[in-house]
Amino acid sequence: MTTTPTLSADIAAMFAPENFRELGHKLIDLLADYLADNLAGQDPVMHWQAPEKADAQWQMPLPQEPLLDAAGLLARLKHDILPASLAIHHPHNMGHQVATPLPVAALCDLVAALTNQAMAVYETGPSATMLERQVLRWLGELIGWQDAGGILTSGGAQANLTALLAARQHAADVWKHGVADVKPLRILVSEHAHYSISRAAGIMGLGTDAVVSIPTDTEGRMLVNALAVAHAEALANDTTVMAVVATAGCTPTGSIDPLLEIGRYCQDHGLWLHVDGAHGASALLSEQHRPALEGIALADSVVWDGHKLLYMPAAVSAVLFRNTASSFEAFSQDASYLFQGGEHIEEMYNVSYRTLECTKRMMGLKLWVAFSLYGARGMAQLLDSAFAKARLLAQKLDAHADFELLMQPQTNIVCFRHRPTALEGPALDAHQSRLREQLVQSGRFHLTRVTLEGRVWLRTTLMNPYTQAEDMDELLLALNQLGQQALA
Amino acid sequence: MTTTPTLSADIAAMFAPENFRELGHKLIDLLADYLADNLAGQDPVMHWQAPEKADAQWQMPLPQEPLLDAAGLLARLKHDILPASLAIHHPHNMGHQVATPLPVAALCDLVAALTNQAMAVYETGPSATMLERQVLRWLGELIGWQDAGGILTSGGAQANLTALLAARQHAADVWKHGVADVKPLRILVSEHAHYSISRAAGIMGLGTDAVVSIPTDTEGRMLVNALAVAHAEALANDTTVMAVVATAGCTPTGSIDPLLEIGRYCQDHGLWLHVDGAHGASALLSEQHRPALEGIALADSVVWDGHKLLYMPAAVSAVLFRNTASSFEAFSQDASYLFQGGEHIEEMYNVSYRTLECTKRMMGLKLWVAFSLYGARGMAQLLDSAFAKARLLAQKLDAHADFELLMQPQTNIVCFRHRPTALEGPALDAHQSRLREQLVQSGRFHLTRVTLEGRVWLRTTLMNPYTQAEDMDELLLALNQLGQQALA
Repeated sequence: MTTTPTLSADIAAMFAPENFRELGHKLIDLLADYLADNLAGQDPVMHWQAPEKADAQWQMPLPQEPLLDAAGLLARLKHDILPASLAIHHPHNMGHQVATPLPVAALCDLVAALTNQAMAVYETGPSATMLERQVLRWLGELIGWQDAGGILTSGGAQANLTALLAARQHAADVWKHGVADVKPLRILVSEHAHYSISRAAGIMGLGTDAVVSIPTDTEGRMLVNALAVAHAEALANDTTVMAVVATAGCTPTGSIDPLLEIGRYCQDHGLWLHVDGAHGASALLSEQHRPALEGIALADSVVWDGHKLLYMPAAVSAVLFRNTASSFEAFSQDASYLFQGGEHIEEMYNVSYRTLECTKRMMGLKLWVAFSLYGARGMAQLLDSAFAKARLLAQKLDAHADFELLMQPQTNIVCFRHRPTALEGPALDAHQSRLREQLVQSGRFHLTRVTLEGRVWLRTTLMNPYTQAEDMDELLLALNQLGQQALA
Repeated sequence: MTTTPTLSADIAAMFAPENFRELGHKLIDLLADYLADNLAGQDPVMHWQAPEKADAQWQMPLPQEPLLDAAGLLARLKHDILPASLAIHHPHNMGHQVATPLPVAALCDLVAALTNQAMAVYETGPSATMLERQVLRWLGELIGWQDAGGILTSGGAQANLTALLAARQHAADVWKHGVADVKPLRILVSEHAHYSISRAAGIMGLGTDAVVSIPTDTEGRMLVNALAVAHAEALANDTTVMAVVATAGCTPTGSIDPLLEIGRYCQDHGLWLHVDGAHGASALLSEQHRPALEGIALADSVVWDGHKLLYMPAAVSAVLFRNTASSFEAFSQDASYLFQGGEHIEEMYNVSYRTLECTKRMMGLKLWVAFSLYGARGMAQLLDSAFAKARLLAQKLDAHADFELLMQPQTNIVCFRHRPTALEGPALDAHQSRLREQLVQSGRFHLTRVTLEGRVWLRTTLMNPYTQAEDMDELLLALNQLGQQALA
């Protein structure tokens, strides 16, 4: 016999609004202090610890009974978890293309988490759905599209996959019967495209060999002549080019492919153009930098990450399609009946037809709030500031005898290397890797490295508006000192 | 000439810790009040509005200048955004398999958002990586595995895709050259499997036709005899079975496939067994319900959603592999060198080798915190409570002359229908759909419907610990009243 379930005291305590309120207020104070320390550059940017050592320290059997109370949790956060994080708002955090998130956007994620709108269908997130649609319309308008469609999804990799699935289905009807029975499909991409493009080809059953790499010029931009050659070869080999992928802000150097030329080529030849603007599409907000993206409106699909230059917490990526109907093709949703009105009209609002996700968190709120609080002009200021910082760092590097600048930054990524005269070739490459490792592990700066044409470069992404000229000077000084020590 | 960028007053205000603190405290109070109202069943579970009408109301041009200040934002949240959400903690929210999230877990998502650990590589989220590894070890141990490996990812659909990518690569080396040159691959799944399995086949280039549907018994469980028949047919057709997918808690009815029998069959025949335990794997926590999952340890891969019966905000799904090395196969990462130690050992900690995501939010924290604060025993209480409620509702339905229960619930999903004697066949089906629509749009309850063997059933998922016996009585009363009105 089933006894009537009642609410146990344990469960009531888990959900009690007053417990949430009390812990919430304490957490806000803890995080506000942490944010202040970070922005002020207090403490190292990272307390580096070898992962195998950290892993051993975290090992703990599954607790059967409660181990922590609220105070204990706050203490663990303060003393263990936050200090062992990368201090994202620290002015010396110059590594990855990851936003120093707007604090208000983080608060929006709290709203998203507590309300847990699943969003798969309209009913499970009515306002979440509307906020997402509004944000997508805004982004579409910035591209220059009137009736664009799309979705928000959990990151650029999924976003690129979603766009390429639509392109694949557009090129050949493979959803039901698979890719084995159609002509081999090819994707033409810049050699600097993000790895998620090649990975998408692997996932989609085309094989990573289906990705044809197009060479770039010395500024890291796809050579349109080479694209034409690759296209002709693909046709000669009796393959179908399902998409050309241009990158607006490539990962290694931030270079922007010549979108107008590529777009015209694709238009002339009936090719699907996908623009991976995960990093750079935000330049559309800026009067100053918008021209670098001229031609983006010729794309069939665009990916645009919020958690890069829109300063959102990860992950929120927009996949936008010039034609709304294309946005249903990715998962081969026959959308024709959705546009006929009547009883099916509601289904058009069910985002799961168009996303890789079934359950999906409310992602539109934070973008909607940022644009509403700061305006497009405020958001553009963030981007302009980041791009200006990159130019300033490049200027400093150019003027410095001990450093070599790879190229003038087109966005906010700056690649360079320490250039002691005593080192050449592989020794010079190893020198960069060692410098980076030492500097990162010292906790003084966070930066990355990249290998281009077999040579290793140091790589910085200037995201944080709190990174100032003095921080750059300090970086170069630190690298120079470490470099000289290494040679001594 | 580039001028030295400085921090503008506008940008400083965006990031000011004191602004975050002030707004944060106000938001905590707003959300605590909202949570209290929800748990108490104040206000409708949803203020339903036709989406096309809502869409028109939300239309607004992209604001160039700030439209809202902090007070305005709080007002919009309170008066527009929260009321137009599905009230997830409302005791009358009985629709989807979406957790009524633990409030402390929502606070953890605030930590994740503000710290924005990208997690692609260890350096971009040291503690985030360790928390994730710890949580995965716990879940692996609950399955009964000693050296399991895996990752957390943004939802069950991506998780199933990730597991099936590993299974595909295990069956045939297709990552580089694609699926066209290998024997056709097949996936054998219960007819009640989640749509993400068939969608994964479409995505992976196999075509949705590659999914072979296995019939179920009257309790919604895969028939192992039928599995053997389908397997033999697949071999006779010269195809390769890349995976058998068993479901532990299927979407329509919550039924759990006979994992032990299926596992033994797969073991005997060298077949990859994937268990989609997105919904039901959490029963492993419960002494009472754990036996229903006997045999799960025979799986090669298991998917387990945190945002279902672990009461997490969406989305956090674990993909677990019995053999750690398998977890690298999904994206064909040649992991052999990672296990050799030396300079590559750190790379083993880079989660992007194994996830669909590149940038990924810190997902492990909230699970780690829930287990640490409440213990496995506390988490089991939540599950036991949900399952007990489902049994109670089933009992009430069984005892009620006006309702027909589809089957005894195996988890916390209960399907039934209103059974006026005057209606049969399609009219009876239409009656259920109409009842659901009316009830949902009235804002009194949220529930779903499901079509099984051509017949429409009402479907409830008992997730909320605050749903009590009286709420169930009220549901049946409301349905009966609406049903009688419809027939009058």
